[in-house]
Amino acid sequence: MTYANPDRNETINRLINPKSIAVIGASENFGKVSGRPLKHLIEKGYAGRVMPVNPKYEKIAGLTCYPSVDALPEIADLAIIALPAAQVCDCVRDLGGKGIRAAVIFSSGFGEMGEAGKALEKKLAETAEAARVILLGPNCLGFVNAFENVYATFSQYADGETGAGPIAFVTQSGAFGTAIAALIRQRGLGLGYFLNTGNQADLDFAELMMALVEDPRIKVAAGYLEGLSDGASLIRLARKCRDLGKPLILTKVGRMESGARAAASHTGALAVSDAVFDAVVRQYGVMRARNEEQMLDMMEVFCQPRRASGNGLGIATQSGGAGVMMADRAEEVGLAVPELGVKTQARLGEVMPAFGAAGNPVDVTGQFVARPELLTESVVALLDDPEIDVAIVWLQLMTAHVDALLEIFREIQERTQKPFLVCWVAAPEAAIKGLRAMEISVYPAGERAVEAAAALSRYGMLKPPGDDRVVSVINIAPEGSTGSGMQPSVEASNWLREAGVPMARVELAENEDSAVSLWRANGGPVALKIESPDIPHKTEVDGVILNVNDEDAVRSGFRMLVERTRHHMPEARLAGVLVQEMSGGHVELVVGVQRDPVFGMIVMVGFGGILVEVLKDVTFRRAPFNPNEAKAMLDELRMSAILDGVRGKPAVDREAIAALLSRLSHWASSMEPRLSELDLNPVLVGEDGPSVVDCVMIFEDRLTSMPDAGVDEPA
Amino acid sequence: MTYANPDRNETINRLINPKSIAVIGASENFGKVSGRPLKHLIEKGYAGRVMPVNPKYEKIAGLTCYPSVDALPEIADLAIIALPAAQVCDCVRDLGGKGIRAAVIFSSGFGEMGEAGKALEKKLAETAEAARVILLGPNCLGFVNAFENVYATFSQYADGETGAGPIAFVTQSGAFGTAIAALIRQRGLGLGYFLNTGNQADLDFAELMMALVEDPRIKVAAGYLEGLSDGASLIRLARKCRDLGKPLILTKVGRMESGARAAASHTGALAVSDAVFDAVVRQYGVMRARNEEQMLDMMEVFCQPRRASGNGLGIATQSGGAGVMMADRAEEVGLAVPELGVKTQARLGEVMPAFGAAGNPVDVTGQFVARPELLTESVVALLDDPEIDVAIVWLQLMTAHVDALLEIFREIQERTQKPFLVCWVAAPEAAIKGLRAMEISVYPAGERAVEAAAALSRYGMLKPPGDDRVVSVINIAPEGSTGSGMQPSVEASNWLREAGVPMARVELAENEDSAVSLWRANGGPVALKIESPDIPHKTEVDGVILNVNDEDAVRSGFRMLVERTRHHMPEARLAGVLVQEMSGGHVELVVGVQRDPVFGMIVMVGFGGILVEVLKDVTFRRAPFNPNEAKAMLDELRMSAILDGVRGKPAVDREAIAALLSRLSHWASSMEPRLSELDLNPVLVGEDGPSVVDCVMIFEDRLTSMPDAGVDEPA
Repeated sequence: MTYANPDRNETINRLINPKSIAVIGASENFGKVSGRPLKHLIEKGYAGRVMPVNPKYEKIAGLTCYPSVDALPEIADLAIIALPAAQVCDCVRDLGGKGIRAAVIFSSGFGEMGEAGKALEKKLAETAEAARVILLGPNCLGFVNAFENVYATFSQYADGETGAGPIAFVTQSGAFGTAIAALIRQRGLGLGYFLNTGNQADLDFAELMMALVEDPRIKVAAGYLEGLSDGASLIRLARKCRDLGKPLILTKVGRMESGARAAASHTGALAVSDAVFDAVVRQYGVMRARNEEQMLDMMEVFCQPRRASGNGLGIATQSGGAGVMMADRAEEVGLAVPELGVKTQARLGEVMPAFGAAGNPVDVTGQFVARPELLTESVVALLDDPEIDVAIVWLQLMTAHVDALLEIFREIQERTQKPFLVCWVAAPEAAIKGLRAMEISVYPAGERAVEAAAALSRYGMLKPPGDDRVVSVINIAPEGSTGSGMQPSVEASNWLREAGVPMARVELAENEDSAVSLWRANGGPVALKIESPDIPHKTEVDGVILNVNDEDAVRSGFRMLVERTRHHMPEARLAGVLVQEMSGGHVELVVGVQRDPVFGMIVMVGFGGILVEVLKDVTFRRAPFNPNEAKAMLDELRMSAILDGVRGKPAVDREAIAALLSRLSHWASSMEPRLSELDLNPVLVGEDGPSVVDCVMIFEDRLTSMPDAGVDEPA
Repeated sequence: MTYANPDRNETINRLINPKSIAVIGASENFGKVSGRPLKHLIEKGYAGRVMPVNPKYEKIAGLTCYPSVDALPEIADLAIIALPAAQVCDCVRDLGGKGIRAAVIFSSGFGEMGEAGKALEKKLAETAEAARVILLGPNCLGFVNAFENVYATFSQYADGETGAGPIAFVTQSGAFGTAIAALIRQRGLGLGYFLNTGNQADLDFAELMMALVEDPRIKVAAGYLEGLSDGASLIRLARKCRDLGKPLILTKVGRMESGARAAASHTGALAVSDAVFDAVVRQYGVMRARNEEQMLDMMEVFCQPRRASGNGLGIATQSGGAGVMMADRAEEVGLAVPELGVKTQARLGEVMPAFGAAGNPVDVTGQFVARPELLTESVVALLDDPEIDVAIVWLQLMTAHVDALLEIFREIQERTQKPFLVCWVAAPEAAIKGLRAMEISVYPAGERAVEAAAALSRYGMLKPPGDDRVVSVINIAPEGSTGSGMQPSVEASNWLREAGVPMARVELAENEDSAVSLWRANGGPVALKIESPDIPHKTEVDGVILNVNDEDAVRSGFRMLVERTRHHMPEARLAGVLVQEMSGGHVELVVGVQRDPVFGMIVMVGFGGILVEVLKDVTFRRAPFNPNEAKAMLDELRMSAILDGVRGKPAVDREAIAALLSRLSHWASSMEPRLSELDLNPVLVGEDGPSVVDCVMIFEDRLTSMPDAGVDEPA
């Protein structure tokens, strides 16, 4: 894929908004896959020229039908291919010959159908590239551009009313995507674009969405993903959406082990580790929705025009219990339910003299039916409170009072700037429609309203775009290293130290005498560790002796380590024994760098020992990142409070740990793609800051692609 | 409250199903609170006699209106009181005088309105008791018995269609309860009883529900709670529901800190610790729903007649992605998504020859529109697999194929016994109605269907009722103890040892010589600990010395502990120094007993040290319980894997820990209400089993009620 190709961008734009469409393999039976796009294009009033191609017919529904691509009277902007798989490659070649540059391929029988299908799909991609035709599909439902009435699809979705609106939705799944599109319609949110990528033989999710979000009529971008192969492209999309101020909502299936297993058998796309995916997309400001319901709830809140600038939630409710339930959920999803200011309390006291406790949640009871100002003034006062960034109003039923309530909400809307959401349980249809017509989001359940408010708050509190870019790339390349595989500890340690990572001092002793002089030079107790290019985990060969502090102990330690290693692993090549200063610290961290096949260099941090093994309390970021992002990583750890000091231990310096992580991330980036794995375990953190005690650094055996960060290749 | 009163039970039954109703304070304005019950009773066709009481009218809507309670021509089974708060007590007295034994009180202005209101409510309760009138309310919406068309309510709910059905729903909140009732109607599940308890001045949630579940027309009991004061009564209800095989679904608000704060300001009911509530209700087989949506989803699955007997979930789906999402959620909520047996795979291969991977989830694709047997045979094969206990079928839209699909589901239903649920996203209304008419549960979102299936599975896998009862109460009462407050360590230790709890051996030395001989008698290293009735936490006065193993060390240790204590806490009374055998063990647990004001004796277990402080990895059960229940507690700990051995440590004996917990629970029960608190911290667990190293036992200062377990009172 060559994204930065202006011709390609132009062709994608013409695919999405074509002035003319050829339907190859068109059928006069409008119930068939090959007939349905014609039906929709005609019935929904597509203004461009529609040209069916099929030697069987002379006309279909009054349109001239052409016997072949070659016979077409003009170069269509888009061809829809509804042919058996075996005929698709030839057709694409014909399209290229005719000068038609974009095709939507409905046909199945490609990558989703075993090895033969995969081979056919590869051939299709090559054919398309040679013919200079871009492809949506194969094995896709096609797409809808509801603004221009382009129905290049056979999806059931097109059977219903499909008014255009501010949402662009791109889905890798046809069936699930159609369901989501139908839900968007049910809610009346307005779907401007609906695209199904199918097998992504050419155009993928991110490239397509990149084109859609350029459309000023689009306010919200949403995607349903099952797999991902081009992480960089997704990150470019995320950055662009942030630059444009358009929320990007993503749902990706395959969160758990069993789900990943099912995903692996279902899709050809690479099953990226979900923990990494989750961390990286959040890092770049994507709003992740765990399922379709949450996706819709987020769409709804981002379709209303107001944004929140903090996480203070005000709740006005007709039921105290509902208020409690929403306050519970708010705490779980990162919202605060602040106590109200004195001024706000006084205002609430004026409208509700009978009720003493005018706290937050505000229980307005059902009395606002008789006294509308009770609700109006309460909500306005809430939103005027400086601690409140977004409010939720909870109601139920009220079938007889819909008009009065809509009037109340209109007044609240006029008198306030901050966003407010309505939760209306068992709401009359007229209430829902009325609120949405006013661009007020409405939810059927309290916890869902809270989750939507939390999404609004998270989005509003994202650091401004650009803040996560690399300020200056530290480019310390280990020239003269030993090449691929595990790197010698001393060199690895030196490279990292030069990059600003606080490594415990370590030297290599090739014999006892050398070990003794290194111990003397150290001037205090040392650790002795066996060094071998064949032994990444020294403890497994019993290859570490701690706290050695006299000459005899150094000498016997040296001998003992060599003997133990010969015993445990006779074939291991021995480089000598490492002599390392002893490090202290009451907090044990593990830090690592992995090269993710989708997202590149990923830095991990977590608590060491039993906590990483049993609790898996770790967190990830894509490298590089700045120290603020690194501090956010530390905050995300479930056992984060350990850093603040527990059981009488002092707090440790989070800034120093964050600096370590950020510097490491820059170094790892500059080493891409040469560095394949790096483990700093343990990193001991005491009052003097962190110290990396052990380090395993592994370079790629074979470089799978050219280095792109100015790094010298190994000899 | 005196539950076991047959007269009271009979009166409750007449309240719920009255043959005649007096409406005190009746209004001819059917829009008013005091007019609405009359309207509903007349319009919905209540068959009994309705007698309005109000000196202002001679007739209301054709019914004779009586000037006073005394003037009523017969003793009504039920009186509805719709009077101002100030007149309610007099009215209740009049009802008692007339011989009317049950009243529903709509009036507000009681416990919910500050101190004056609380006093009035107390007076109301006393008046009712003296007058032998049972009360529902005050400050309640009343109730609906939809079977007998009893509409003793002014709730908005009664405005709509209210066909009777298998659900009994009792709510402490009027507004939220009405919303839930309306949702039950929207789904067409059938609400037989709908009661709002209001302030519970007399009848509470559990006592009312106890009467409702006796009705054979009721299949599912559901409650919405905001607070709880009588835990024993709730447990009796839970046991009864299990005996009757009727699921009891509870939603209680106030799960989190901020929610609890809001609850405290909202309700007069005692804010029971949610962690304890959650553990105890699950212990007794209650199905807890976290919010109203989940409550409705559970109601729906329990309204269908089939039950699951294990946790194996089979998924048949039209979208691979939806299958993955459901498999993910299944793993999170305790369901397995097992691989299918060879036989099942062969059957699936027969119907879907084109698709190789016929795993679970089974992706039937959209082709079943043309070939219905694809769906039918797949689902039947899934349900026939011995590993599968419940299935979910995922569909979307299919507006044109509703009848065909209903026919498919009818055939599946005929050919199978196990439960299956349908998830139909963006379903046509006719599909939902058709499935519910066949008693098949249908959900609008995949994850919600999975959660419902998980509830069905959890319910089906509950241990049979009775399994959680005490087999034999160990009644070891510490006769001759020192009375209230903190108990001496040696005595406390002895009582627990006699009860079967493995305590580390400990003796009290009053002087150095005695300490030395106790050390000698121990025959190995000992711990020395200061003993004082004023010092529960010995480490806080630096009052513990470990691993003492020679005479000098014992003597100097004794002196040092006395000096340190005099330094840190000069006023503390010193009993001497404890000499305790040293215990080993690589796992550190904390075990505790608290006397919960609602549920009584609660046993807690968790991991000690940093894990209990930061992660709060603890779990609770109401005492007493058997070792199986104790093992379930260990399984619930998030760090449970530590017990299986990590980082080269051996596994510990879960049975031995479970025995400790169960024995402790029996002892704690036998000590109720005398024991107020007990901390066993740490409990060290090694290869030889657990050993309790430190124990703080506190008795009640003043007994708040008589002991009920045969325990002697302190002198």
